[in-house]
Amino acid sequence: MIKQVLVGVICGAAVLTVGILIGHFGITKTGSSAPSWVTDVTKDVDESLIDKFLSEVDNIQIQENLRELTKVPHMATTAGDEQTVQFMLKRWQDPETGLDKAWREEYLVYLSFPDPTNPNKVTVVSPSDTVLHQVREKEKNYTSDQNDPEVVQPYAAYSPAGHPKGKLVYANQGKPSDYHLLNQTVDLRGTIAITRYGGAGRGAKAINAAPYGVIGVLVYTDPLDINDGLMSDTSETYPHSWYLPPSGVERGSFNGQYGDMLTPYLAAKEGTYRIPVENITGIPPIPIQPIGFEDAYILICALGGEAAPASWQGAFNCTYNFGGPGFKSTSAFNDSDVKMDIFNQEKIKNSSNVMGVIRGSVEPDRYVIYGNHRDSWVHGAIDPSSGTAVMLELTRVLGRMVKQGKWRPRRSIVFGSWGAEEFGLIGSAEYTEQYFAKLSERTVAYINVDIAVFVFIVKVAAPGLDSTSVYDNWIRYSNRTSPNHGTIPRMGFLTGAGSDYAAFVHYLGITSMDISYTYDRSKTNARIYPAYHTAYDTFNYASEFIDPGFLSHQAIARTAGNVLIRLADSLVLPLNCSDYSESLDDYLNTAVSLYEHKLKAWKISMEPLKHAVASFRSAAAHLDHVIRTSDLAKETPLKVRKINDQLMLLDRAFLDPLAFPDKYAYRHVIWASSSAGKPTFPGLADAFASAESSGHSRDWDKVHFHLSVLSQAIEGAAQTLLDVI
Amino acid sequence: MIKQVLVGVICGAAVLTVGILIGHFGITKTGSSAPSWVTDVTKDVDESLIDKFLSEVDNIQIQENLRELTKVPHMATTAGDEQTVQFMLKRWQDPETGLDKAWREEYLVYLSFPDPTNPNKVTVVSPSDTVLHQVREKEKNYTSDQNDPEVVQPYAAYSPAGHPKGKLVYANQGKPSDYHLLNQTVDLRGTIAITRYGGAGRGAKAINAAPYGVIGVLVYTDPLDINDGLMSDTSETYPHSWYLPPSGVERGSFNGQYGDMLTPYLAAKEGTYRIPVENITGIPPIPIQPIGFEDAYILICALGGEAAPASWQGAFNCTYNFGGPGFKSTSAFNDSDVKMDIFNQEKIKNSSNVMGVIRGSVEPDRYVIYGNHRDSWVHGAIDPSSGTAVMLELTRVLGRMVKQGKWRPRRSIVFGSWGAEEFGLIGSAEYTEQYFAKLSERTVAYINVDIAVFVFIVKVAAPGLDSTSVYDNWIRYSNRTSPNHGTIPRMGFLTGAGSDYAAFVHYLGITSMDISYTYDRSKTNARIYPAYHTAYDTFNYASEFIDPGFLSHQAIARTAGNVLIRLADSLVLPLNCSDYSESLDDYLNTAVSLYEHKLKAWKISMEPLKHAVASFRSAAAHLDHVIRTSDLAKETPLKVRKINDQLMLLDRAFLDPLAFPDKYAYRHVIWASSSAGKPTFPGLADAFASAESSGHSRDWDKVHFHLSVLSQAIEGAAQTLLDVI
Repeated sequence: MIKQVLVGVICGAAVLTVGILIGHFGITKTGSSAPSWVTDVTKDVDESLIDKFLSEVDNIQIQENLRELTKVPHMATTAGDEQTVQFMLKRWQDPETGLDKAWREEYLVYLSFPDPTNPNKVTVVSPSDTVLHQVREKEKNYTSDQNDPEVVQPYAAYSPAGHPKGKLVYANQGKPSDYHLLNQTVDLRGTIAITRYGGAGRGAKAINAAPYGVIGVLVYTDPLDINDGLMSDTSETYPHSWYLPPSGVERGSFNGQYGDMLTPYLAAKEGTYRIPVENITGIPPIPIQPIGFEDAYILICALGGEAAPASWQGAFNCTYNFGGPGFKSTSAFNDSDVKMDIFNQEKIKNSSNVMGVIRGSVEPDRYVIYGNHRDSWVHGAIDPSSGTAVMLELTRVLGRMVKQGKWRPRRSIVFGSWGAEEFGLIGSAEYTEQYFAKLSERTVAYINVDIAVFVFIVKVAAPGLDSTSVYDNWIRYSNRTSPNHGTIPRMGFLTGAGSDYAAFVHYLGITSMDISYTYDRSKTNARIYPAYHTAYDTFNYASEFIDPGFLSHQAIARTAGNVLIRLADSLVLPLNCSDYSESLDDYLNTAVSLYEHKLKAWKISMEPLKHAVASFRSAAAHLDHVIRTSDLAKETPLKVRKINDQLMLLDRAFLDPLAFPDKYAYRHVIWASSSAGKPTFPGLADAFASAESSGHSRDWDKVHFHLSVLSQAIEGAAQTLLDVI
Repeated sequence: MIKQVLVGVICGAAVLTVGILIGHFGITKTGSSAPSWVTDVTKDVDESLIDKFLSEVDNIQIQENLRELTKVPHMATTAGDEQTVQFMLKRWQDPETGLDKAWREEYLVYLSFPDPTNPNKVTVVSPSDTVLHQVREKEKNYTSDQNDPEVVQPYAAYSPAGHPKGKLVYANQGKPSDYHLLNQTVDLRGTIAITRYGGAGRGAKAINAAPYGVIGVLVYTDPLDINDGLMSDTSETYPHSWYLPPSGVERGSFNGQYGDMLTPYLAAKEGTYRIPVENITGIPPIPIQPIGFEDAYILICALGGEAAPASWQGAFNCTYNFGGPGFKSTSAFNDSDVKMDIFNQEKIKNSSNVMGVIRGSVEPDRYVIYGNHRDSWVHGAIDPSSGTAVMLELTRVLGRMVKQGKWRPRRSIVFGSWGAEEFGLIGSAEYTEQYFAKLSERTVAYINVDIAVFVFIVKVAAPGLDSTSVYDNWIRYSNRTSPNHGTIPRMGFLTGAGSDYAAFVHYLGITSMDISYTYDRSKTNARIYPAYHTAYDTFNYASEFIDPGFLSHQAIARTAGNVLIRLADSLVLPLNCSDYSESLDDYLNTAVSLYEHKLKAWKISMEPLKHAVASFRSAAAHLDHVIRTSDLAKETPLKVRKINDQLMLLDRAFLDPLAFPDKYAYRHVIWASSSAGKPTFPGLADAFASAESSGHSRDWDKVHFHLSVLSQAIEGAAQTLLDVI
């Protein structure tokens, strides 16, 4: 489950300024009568150790990790998943290259599967009940991978079972505005809507449809959105290129919130209270099923009715009509219905996280957490095994240094191989619920590397090992101008729930980073790598088309490991609060220009927010100054710890469990998701959009309320950056 | 506002084991080449400094503090209140004996006052509208104090204004069961109910009445409940004794939640969103007014109708009848109504906290907070000035040591003189809202000393200065048997919101303590000291009857200061998690015996809770063992800090903002208030009582839900006590 594709994303305090901070603090020289721990507690990150780490990260090891991880499909809780659990444990418990400790943690979680003995079917049936067309049930085989009996049939997890039959209509991306427009021309009651991926969340395509009387939804990937228009599997698509073959189908979870849906805010253990299934919200109320564009082509090009607008047209060589509803009278499907037979079953299954740790030497009670999910939809070579292969190479190199006694990080490092992410970030979310207090108190940062490499297009090199560094490459293809630093690499914000960072940043307020190597968007319009969530996301695909030679994987391993070691070993945490302040300034400027005029009319002042952002700016500058002008290696380690606690806990100060009453497990007032689509404070933007749309004074009250929540959180965060007393 | 009277109350980790921990850690001797800070960071509490502190605490200074503080009435936000603000600031900014820094913090809070130009009136009016009796508007003068024009008329803060007129009935304590019983005999529609203090919260007496059609409520203090039955002001009551004169009236806040009611969870600043006044809950829906027992006697003894039950009878020499409704036909009030004319006005006023700090030398980012409210209803000699007089003596002695360069605590000490406590703990609650993140992250403990001394009956002595120590006295009059420690002084639990500790423990999860010197309950039945919230709570009353010579005040100052210094200076925090575990064991045993059988019938297992408590027990024993067997003064200060963080943050681990959806600002799953009246987990007890009463399966679901919340919180807390990784 990856909704955002970013070169490197960091939430909260930026790691960018690593270079500014490191090297500043030497090692205090102490005489023989000083306690032995004095040297340890004042030690800073060792650059030569980082160089050694970078040189030992091996592309071929990553390749072999990936080969092993993708031998069989490993959907959550299947036998293939258990095989990867055992593999991770074996590697992390290896006496030569393993971690200090590794173990599994289990949760009983609510999942959804097709019935293997009764596959989901989509057919075109004539008025006399003759089956005129049957949609392909499994993807076409090109390598032997697609023939593995463990390849799960394409399906929409959490779609209800059901057997709707009705006239077909085309509803573009299934957004509210799409159904609204379609409904002006076609009576949607009793219809089946075909939609394409993109524009709206998966489940939303069904949720948005139901109020219009639509009884079933199909979804497919249009070649325009994924293949730059290419469609032919004899020459254009995989195995001839990285593009999606016509029978390829994107599977996915069709739920709207993250974590186990039966146990909100509670770890899903035996005996845990489970809400009644009928109380689950955010899942499709009507059956929905994904299909390949091979079948979508046949269905859409036969549709009758008016031509859909230009923006609704895809790559097929026909006009996309709305549907009569139903097919053209001139087509073979004249007067026929589309019938869906969905046999999905929900089950409570035992899902495992695999955990491993390297104990910290000086501050074992400070955790740097590094994680990725382990479960895939099919073989999952890119999603998620590219990230897992990278993680295993990281742990091999670091583990060996630890086992050989050459290194032990200052802080503890926790590795997490999460289960059941594809069903809604379940393993990581349950973990944060179970260990809420401990993780909140002690976690310095969370690093997520899920899909490590999206595609090999830009020239890749690792820092120090080639003429083009990751930094240079990054700044060339994606940059921004910072008032403090000039031109610097651009980083996105973790405002969504695209991967396992969600619970860490949104629920726990832990500074988080999501790292991946992505592609030059000027060279393809693919919304994601084309084999995403299909039976073609295999080792062959990864090694032939995504990263032959695995040098991009190596670059990611080096970059992520570099960040990891600096977070674990730096005397002063490489997190910069002035960079945070830049983001708040941008958000404030946008908010003022978008909202202030209208808010004044409702007698709502933005002054408290302006004051809060100004307080934060000045407090952040102050702490920066203290860090820059102190020789902390010569002072009491409790002074360094004090500053590190200020940096570590900064994101926690932005949490308010009551800030988003309608958003499950979103508590961070700066980085929460938003539907308003404005680059500003999410809760303010959403509340303003609601109030503007309804015009109700109680909705303007909600804007005022959220403005107060936000101002108080920012003022409170600023307070934590000032001198402590 | 004091609902609980306790010898000394501590929530969470117990300070009791101070004696066990101190003296264990010596000072590491280091050679001249060790950094200079090595000696500082390993230093433990200095016993000779505590002895010095104890010897310098002066009873006469406390007496003079009290004299100054009680010169004029100082109700919140009045001129008298401002006078005390200036006095506190002057003392805390004194160059010889003041603190490092002192300042004021202001909030715009929602208060309720009578109209000085239009006093509230309660009258008996005949059918022809003749006033037959008028209730006294002000308390009778005995010393000049009661004649001060700033003495506020007795009133019920947050009672609505209104002019109900109706037949009088007697409703005992105004509990739901009282109105229920009364309603079986008397038609309550249109009546005025007279109730006595006790048994139900102040506001609840009106809230419980309204559903029966009662239109107004009077409340008085029965001599049985406060005066051991005595009534005569010519010989028995103040100024002849500590007992309440017949005209004395207990004022009070009649709201049901703490903090400013217009700004829930938000600090009440200019521009802060305020909820509509009509959305306030928990305040009287009908007018209510307190009166003295002098007038209550006249009204109650004239009531007609059946005799009330024995348990409803008070100390008056007449039978307490239900009311016909209304008066006996044989009384002068035959056929007459009681009329209430209430002119209370709500106002948003500027209330100040006065804050002061002593900066910590080694861990300035760890706070020990010591506080008391400053505002009173009238002169407030006991409530709260006895506590403030003690606090000022503490800060004088400590401040002088700091100014003379003789001492600086390891951790920072923050003093708070809270405003507007009497209206609902407002100043302290707003403070915790404004500085939520900073206080949550850094506060080691909160110590509250409100009413320092309730009465001078038991023999008092300070540790080391007399033959009977506070400890010996305490253990003699109030003790319990602990599996770990044998017979020890008994401490209560801070489960309510009786004073300013509420926001610290319930909202922030900060280990808190409420200290006072109270009386031997075998010697009086008074529910509290009799002058409580009346115009008789004066310096004269305090020095004549409560603590002549101020030796009890001195004992409290010594005890509180001793605890404060140990919390601020001990190398390892004097907080004991095994004592916490004893309380959880007791709670569990009670819960199992009360609930397990019935829960099984609903297929709800208590095993997760049992497992959680066992995890906690073993983790607490483990941490205790680590502390006891380590020579922490010889190890890295970061190891001590790690343990101290475990102890400091233990209570935070029990917070769940979603645990009590119906209780405002209660988040601590162990110490929250409970209406079920069982000595066990409060949310479980309340949920069980609701389910048992309704029998609805959705209410049993709520029991199961809370059991999961509770188990997860306890398991999570246990995790924080284990080895950190």
